[in-house]
Amino acid sequence: MTTDLKILEGRLLNTIHETAAKWGAAGVWGSDVTETGCCRLALSDLDKGVRDWFVEETKALGCTVKVDEMGSIFAIYPGKNEGLPTGIGSHLDTQPNGGRYDGIYGVLSGLEVLRTMKENNFVPNFPVAVVDWTNEEGARFPQSCIASSVWAGLVTKEEGYKLESITDKVPVSYGAELERIGYKGTTPADHTKNQLAAHFEIHIEQGPVLEHEKKKIGIVVGAQAYHWQQITVNGRSSHAGTTPMHTRSDAIHIASKMISAAIDIAKKHGGLATIGTISLEPSSVNVIPDKVTFSLDTRHVEDGILETINAEIAKEFKQIAETGSDPSQAALPLEVEHTLLLHSEAVRFNETNIATVRESAIQLFGEENVREITSGAGHDSCSTSHVVPTSMIFIPSKNGISHNPAEYSSPEEVSNGFKVLLATILRYDELRGK
Amino acid sequence: MTTDLKILEGRLLNTIHETAAKWGAAGVWGSDVTETGCCRLALSDLDKGVRDWFVEETKALGCTVKVDEMGSIFAIYPGKNEGLPTGIGSHLDTQPNGGRYDGIYGVLSGLEVLRTMKENNFVPNFPVAVVDWTNEEGARFPQSCIASSVWAGLVTKEEGYKLESITDKVPVSYGAELERIGYKGTTPADHTKNQLAAHFEIHIEQGPVLEHEKKKIGIVVGAQAYHWQQITVNGRSSHAGTTPMHTRSDAIHIASKMISAAIDIAKKHGGLATIGTISLEPSSVNVIPDKVTFSLDTRHVEDGILETINAEIAKEFKQIAETGSDPSQAALPLEVEHTLLLHSEAVRFNETNIATVRESAIQLFGEENVREITSGAGHDSCSTSHVVPTSMIFIPSKNGISHNPAEYSSPEEVSNGFKVLLATILRYDELRGK
Ligand SMILES: NC(=O)NCCC(=O)O
Ligand SMILES: NC(=O)NCCC(=O)O
Repeated sequence: MTTDLKILEGRLLNTIHETAAKWGAAGVWGSDVTETGCCRLALSDLDKGVRDWFVEETKALGCTVKVDEMGSIFAIYPGKNEGLPTGIGSHLDTQPNGGRYDGIYGVLSGLEVLRTMKENNFVPNFPVAVVDWTNEEGARFPQSCIASSVWAGLVTKEEGYKLESITDKVPVSYGAELERIGYKGTTPADHTKNQLAAHFEIHIEQGPVLEHEKKKIGIVVGAQAYHWQQITVNGRSSHAGTTPMHTRSDAIHIASKMISAAIDIAKKHGGLATIGTISLEPSSVNVIPDKVTFSLDTRHVEDGILETINAEIAKEFKQIAETGSDPSQAALPLEVEHTLLLHSEAVRFNETNIATVRESAIQLFGEENVREITSGAGHDSCSTSHVVPTSMIFIPSKNGISHNPAEYSSPEEVSNGFKVLLATILRYDELRGK
Repeated sequence: MTTDLKILEGRLLNTIHETAAKWGAAGVWGSDVTETGCCRLALSDLDKGVRDWFVEETKALGCTVKVDEMGSIFAIYPGKNEGLPTGIGSHLDTQPNGGRYDGIYGVLSGLEVLRTMKENNFVPNFPVAVVDWTNEEGARFPQSCIASSVWAGLVTKEEGYKLESITDKVPVSYGAELERIGYKGTTPADHTKNQLAAHFEIHIEQGPVLEHEKKKIGIVVGAQAYHWQQITVNGRSSHAGTTPMHTRSDAIHIASKMISAAIDIAKKHGGLATIGTISLEPSSVNVIPDKVTFSLDTRHVEDGILETINAEIAKEFKQIAETGSDPSQAALPLEVEHTLLLHSEAVRFNETNIATVRESAIQLFGEENVREITSGAGHDSCSTSHVVPTSMIFIPSKNGISHNPAEYSSPEEVSNGFKVLLATILRYDELRGK
């Protein structure tokens, strides 16, 4: 069942480095020219650059390229039969201070699958689509996996278009940026109208598990639940020099207590809590702020426990706000508001897909070098898993570091993962052929 | 010794409201058109607008107008003799969400003194200068009282020019903005070359003391010490979903503990601590930040105790940073840096000036309606007091609120304060005549 397709060792990694160098290399962490991260925010000029290249490359391989209404690019490599394409998807956008593997590795591995098939004059039973999903990171437009979520019918197109950027001095909308870079396609962003037979995704783990256990490949069986909120604390601004401490309704003092409390609550339940953005009004050295806004990302592998974490946090925030800085004194109580940005349920991937990855990985690297793993991060595969058979493959991340320029997987790890992906796609295609 | 100059009741308040309406009215807090605050950041177009008007008004009264190298405007009304002018100074800049009295009341009261003298055909013994000091607030360029500090020789002109704005999307320098609005004057910003005989300033209290004790006038005997720092916490950015809590070096978690600690330490010593600005890198919902920068404003009436507060805070910050999120685990220790933005020592005003204010206030409103008070806020008078005899007059602030659009003093309070200022200036001029 393994492939005897000839693989061109090193080309995938070269493509990763060449595209990073052209579109977004940033965040030097080592002395080699490839030792930087990448800043390629969704729908930016750099994103347009790499998209144009990706479209050209896949067309040159004989793909039909479709761009959907959310800007996701579907490059479809023809098969012997007309049926639905087997999808390989991930994303080409990055964090503002991201690495050069997160997402990019997945899309470029898909491209490498197509290149390898082409070179070997191999025609799959069914078409193979490589998909670049828009704004997976949720870094520029604060809803991760938005384009795959719209495609899967979890969120409306309109909600996506309305998202306002949080990385621009003057916020711009997803819809406007999509038009500006010329990637507002006409293919419906709808899994019932632009169908896939399945979705596979290869990704760096972004966490410490595989490295710690010295495993080469992670067979991803699902992903934990995560929840994004924007928290606003309303106090009363006043003068830093003339307002007695006991009469202050100091929004940042209260917010700082909330931040500590949220982290403690998540920890207590074995979950995660992250505060990634914060802003403060009016923002002047000698003014007690009256408004603090911060993001809160909470996660847990079990939906129920995540719900408990969020409920406890909300209860605690309310109490911290109401008792103010100094409840025994003249300080006014503060108010806290919660705005939901995103909720992604815990996901269990498709058993057939998982088995296909498992068999390919074990055949290539042996039982002892692979393990099942649950993703800590969200992925476009979490969206697609709601509507098509989906699973993922992980490779180790050095020091478990991601969303950091120093994100790194070795050339060997990059190559290992690609081999498992290629084998998985061929195996799945064969399965579909039967 | 009181003046029998005729006062035009209401004109000062009208001028306050008219100039607010034209240059910066913002932050509606009531239904009347005058019930807004003001946003007139130093060296902005709005600041230029009110400056041009101020220059025109004072010239029309017969003043000689000089603009110094830091942009401070000296409008000098002639006296019978040639000697140094008696100064009345304050500032026309505001906080981003400031009120319409803070500083403005002082400069426009000075103007009203000149108008009153002119109308009454009163010629003082010595010239009277009304001074608009640049960037008193420290809101746009984060060093309060910078122009008066340069004038007093406490800070160099070059340090002032280099200050970068913190309220602009793209920071601009004080020097560049000064040139842009045409207020980089040629008069030396130097108290030895552009001298004053004395400096008086009338201001709203900005705190709750006078209101609470039902006093009409505060005889300001000095100001507390204050200290501005920028604190930077360096951690390690990583993924919100894949980084176990116990391995995080979470800069905002650590910063939130520091914020609470600083406030507790200041409180313990009877001082003040305020965090007015904060920013976070990389600033993405699903990224643990690796860098948090926040301002820390600490104050105490005694220099020594302020020093103790700052030392304790620095020690505590170091410990919080080094022990990281979870010292027993794999988290890296974090680093904390302190950058000094400003240090202003506790100030005791000149006894003759204080006595002149006291006598004028008591004569007008009686012993029972006045009290001595120490300013919680810094003022341009703190700078001038280092080099010329200085003192201040306060009027009550409603609810002790300032640096907030709802800052308010009643028409009667505004008028009362002006009368004390006028009497003080005439009394001091008479004293100088002897
Ligand atoms: N893989 C990845 O970093 N996705 C971003 C969504 C998330 O925060 O988990
Ligand atoms: N009066 C006033 O608000 N001055 C600003 C400087 C300070 O923060 O005390």
